[in-house]
Amino acid sequence: MILTVTLNAALDLTYRVPHLVPHASHRVRQVTERPGGKGLNVARVLGALGFRTTVTGFVGGETGRTLRALLAADGDPGSGGGDHGPAAAGSGGGSAAVTDALVEVAGATRRTVGVVDESSGDTTQLNEPGPHISPEEWEGFLAAYRRLLEQGVEAVALCGSLPPGVPVGAYATLVREARTARIPVLLDTSGEPLRRGLAARPDLVKPNADELAGITGTAEPLRAARAAQRRGARAVAASLGADGMLLVTRDGAWSAAVPERLAGNPTGAGDSAVAGLLSGLAEDLPWPERLARAVALSAATVRAPVAGEFDEQTYARMLPSVRVHGAETP
Amino acid sequence: MILTVTLNAALDLTYRVPHLVPHASHRVRQVTERPGGKGLNVARVLGALGFRTTVTGFVGGETGRTLRALLAADGDPGSGGGDHGPAAAGSGGGSAAVTDALVEVAGATRRTVGVVDESSGDTTQLNEPGPHISPEEWEGFLAAYRRLLEQGVEAVALCGSLPPGVPVGAYATLVREARTARIPVLLDTSGEPLRRGLAARPDLVKPNADELAGITGTAEPLRAARAAQRRGARAVAASLGADGMLLVTRDGAWSAAVPERLAGNPTGAGDSAVAGLLSGLAEDLPWPERLARAVALSAATVRAPVAGEFDEQTYARMLPSVRVHGAETP
Repeated sequence: MILTVTLNAALDLTYRVPHLVPHASHRVRQVTERPGGKGLNVARVLGALGFRTTVTGFVGGETGRTLRALLAADGDPGSGGGDHGPAAAGSGGGSAAVTDALVEVAGATRRTVGVVDESSGDTTQLNEPGPHISPEEWEGFLAAYRRLLEQGVEAVALCGSLPPGVPVGAYATLVREARTARIPVLLDTSGEPLRRGLAARPDLVKPNADELAGITGTAEPLRAARAAQRRGARAVAASLGADGMLLVTRDGAWSAAVPERLAGNPTGAGDSAVAGLLSGLAEDLPWPERLARAVALSAATVRAPVAGEFDEQTYARMLPSVRVHGAETP
Repeated sequence: MILTVTLNAALDLTYRVPHLVPHASHRVRQVTERPGGKGLNVARVLGALGFRTTVTGFVGGETGRTLRALLAADGDPGSGGGDHGPAAAGSGGGSAAVTDALVEVAGATRRTVGVVDESSGDTTQLNEPGPHISPEEWEGFLAAYRRLLEQGVEAVALCGSLPPGVPVGAYATLVREARTARIPVLLDTSGEPLRRGLAARPDLVKPNADELAGITGTAEPLRAARAAQRRGARAVAASLGADGMLLVTRDGAWSAAVPERLAGNPTGAGDSAVAGLLSGLAEDLPWPERLARAVALSAATVRAPVAGEFDEQTYARMLPSVRVHGAETP
């Protein structure tokens, strides 16, 4: 199975309002709740693609209860998903349920609120900081993570921000544990946790252009990706928005994009890219194929009517049309 | 005891952000959760004044669980409150716990999110619509409400908006039940529920200037209050913001204000006014004294550091200084 780690999981709320006016009072027309945090989003995409996926991280409080209930409901046969048994990995066919291996803590899972202004389609995002994690809770998580790594994990993704109380070197620790267990590990975070995580030599990091510039001081993507590689990552996949993705490995460098500019909502496109890369890592596909999956899934997410989900038909149509070509050292 | 009804109770969240920018992403610096909805706010003020108060209305889901836990914690001796035993009503001394007589429903209690922009101090408010109430749930509530009215209720307040599914004439029904039980009843709502409720002849309604103009078509407060009275209310107390309050009864008309303009946050000032009026109704004080309490509590709420709470020292200082004088028919 594939394992995703979301240390700062969230209950994602989406509020639709006719028009957002600062300092005014609004009646919310529609409320949507779903499990959130990058690793949970990645797992949902992997599940939809038919991969057996397990999620871990911290969960707590009444918001955590709601998150777990929604996660379980996602896997209900009644909701079009599969069951908890093995699914045909990579079949692209039936979806597989996501297994919940989240670890309970005393604090409450944070909420995020996305306020969609229906007049413009734009979203204003409000993210709670997350529960305080005690040193004992962090040690408890580490033990649970080590046990999971012994259960036939094909690849692991470490995703998102750290909640208060978790050591800033947390991802470096988790990368080392995965490498010790000889499991391919992808890191998708930013700032100091990314900087520290790089030094532990993850197999792949997936920064966006801003995150990459933030840790390398270089705005030119290829130069910055090479700099991130020198800091410890075996490979760097940078998401460049509408310009697709850039991949730098020890074997070469490639860039990839879809042949058409797609209008839509980019929320979750980065998480879908991680799902594409991770599935390719788990199946040991050649790098250009991993990149093509990531780019096609990103595009299919931008085109989906619901933020953060991907459109399966767009994915099937895009995958063969992604243009992957060698990137030259600048 | 005093009974307050909040059919659309809420879990009130307050988010503090350094500066709210529409369509941007924000890290919330501080999250506060508390029981919300007008009737619950009124009960909290009454409890702080030492009145035994019971709250009812609908509650459900994980948000409802959190609301009930917070309500119970409010009454903990450790948090400075009293206990569930009788308290010296009207003593103005020690606070009394609020008794939870909320009725469970299948849907989840709504959230409201108040986003405080720390750069300006202004608040942007987002209110969820509330759970759908089934006809059976409404009937179940009516039965519970009738039982409560038999338990020594001195006054009842019916507060706030109606959740989806509740008949628009709900407050009219609840007013009639209270009048049949010979219990003084105050109605604080707006729009069609207020219009219908008026016809059932509540003892007192407390619209603000906008709500009053909305149902009477008259912007001049005294004229509008008289019009609302003709529609069925025995008395009308209109809150006029910084201009204080106007009260029209069968015995006369008064206006009242504090002698100084107070800067602060008006959130909850209307609910504190309801608490003042209701406590006076329960104790059968003369109308000018009820009005003075309402105005002093409103002012003490505007001056409190936390939105919706009242400053006890300001209340003690303001109460004797409120100027009540007869209002002339225009």
